[in-house]
Amino acid sequence: MKTRIISAICMVPLVALLYFGSFWLAALCIFVAFVGLREFYQGFEHEDVHPVKMIGYVSIFVLYFLNGFMLYSGRPYNYEMILAWLAASVMAGSLVMFDITKKTPIDAMATIIGIVYIVFFSFHVVLVDQSDYPVMRWLVVITAFGSDIFAYFTGVFFGKHKMCPNLSPKKTIEGFIGGIAGSTLCSGLFGFFFAKELLIHCIILGIFAGIVSVGGDLTASAYKRHMGIKDYGNLIPGHGGIMDRFDSIMFTAPFIYYYIAIVLDHFQLGL
Amino acid sequence: MKTRIISAICMVPLVALLYFGSFWLAALCIFVAFVGLREFYQGFEHEDVHPVKMIGYVSIFVLYFLNGFMLYSGRPYNYEMILAWLAASVMAGSLVMFDITKKTPIDAMATIIGIVYIVFFSFHVVLVDQSDYPVMRWLVVITAFGSDIFAYFTGVFFGKHKMCPNLSPKKTIEGFIGGIAGSTLCSGLFGFFFAKELLIHCIILGIFAGIVSVGGDLTASAYKRHMGIKDYGNLIPGHGGIMDRFDSIMFTAPFIYYYIAIVLDHFQLGL
Repeated sequence: MKTRIISAICMVPLVALLYFGSFWLAALCIFVAFVGLREFYQGFEHEDVHPVKMIGYVSIFVLYFLNGFMLYSGRPYNYEMILAWLAASVMAGSLVMFDITKKTPIDAMATIIGIVYIVFFSFHVVLVDQSDYPVMRWLVVITAFGSDIFAYFTGVFFGKHKMCPNLSPKKTIEGFIGGIAGSTLCSGLFGFFFAKELLIHCIILGIFAGIVSVGGDLTASAYKRHMGIKDYGNLIPGHGGIMDRFDSIMFTAPFIYYYIAIVLDHFQLGL
Repeated sequence: MKTRIISAICMVPLVALLYFGSFWLAALCIFVAFVGLREFYQGFEHEDVHPVKMIGYVSIFVLYFLNGFMLYSGRPYNYEMILAWLAASVMAGSLVMFDITKKTPIDAMATIIGIVYIVFFSFHVVLVDQSDYPVMRWLVVITAFGSDIFAYFTGVFFGKHKMCPNLSPKKTIEGFIGGIAGSTLCSGLFGFFFAKELLIHCIILGIFAGIVSVGGDLTASAYKRHMGIKDYGNLIPGHGGIMDRFDSIMFTAPFIYYYIAIVLDHFQLGL
């Protein structure tokens, strides 16, 4: 409970950066990618898996450099560049295991998964901000935290049936439903007050990103469980690391971005 | 030696499909992705890692369906769809580990790496074929096999210095240099006779894709070594599986595609 309140206070500067968007939001995402990746890689070391951190850090630099370059080069933004970055990162990660006496393919796989799961996924916050609907960047956070907070309180008051007792023992089915309802409510209110022309999409995203957000939470938990750690770090002492607080956002960000890219932009169903 | 000759004969129908391109080439890539992924996942079972095959198979279906849909939908081809497919595949692969009593994050990581390394990478053959320079699809194969065959013969006749004795004991530095020279020669000849306006690019790709091709070969070897298997399969009895024959292509295909997409298309340096 106390953890959650302190975490909520720590969110204030984050909200400011989200409000400013653009360069400030990109800087925040670089920070989250860097610290999150470091936590993730260090977690693996607990189970004797040794990803090559430097490959991950270079991939962050290259991705945001490419993004900035494309934004200011005067040429149209080219998503093939992002695909090229991904392919190059996977190839670079594969190099790890050529040193076969010291490294295993599991080390290479962990290096690659870290880049895809943390660097690539968190980058979608920036992509939402750069899209035709930058207001939607708020939904990335609203669905993730809305779902989390409402799930917590619904679980505390009404929770009876365990959802996944082995993976995350405190989660209940009642909490899960309450979380989705909360995410939908918060997203709907946000749409109603701040993005009326997108209200229906806010409600749809509230439901589905609320569900996806639980997937992000459970993914981070499963890795932690396997690594044998309770928290990814202690950036905020006693309150976990970046990956403990942003686990849901890793999944809601891509989901909301591709909803915009496919439903609103490609098929123009929103207009 | 005999293996190599028989493999070469088996390449004849492949060359025909490559010649026809388009639908036929896509069908070949689906086949390679399906069989290659199956071999890769089965290899992991030797070391008690259990990827979820069905997620991989569904990802192949979805990717080629999306691709076909975009080609014939009348809307411009949208690379964000491919990014969305990738993100969705990574999320789907993460679901694997929610069943934490039976599955581990390593199973999920193997599921995801299989999709990225085999399905996504081999798909670039199709992307090259659909690009503005479909003739370049030949280079994907010419650089991979040119490098492989010339490396073999240079190694046999001049090989003295081992390149990576622990990972691939037969590879020599002399063979590596001979392979790059061979890849460059074959690509250059191809450019001279069949794509004169792209000759300089064929030579550049001959050099660099020749190097990248060795990376593909070593990556496949490192996985095999870790899995404790000699070959990925026996599709051609006694001559290995799809992943033994197409290991280099997994890396040359993305390299050549992004060369086209970035150097020739985005920056138009070739015109």
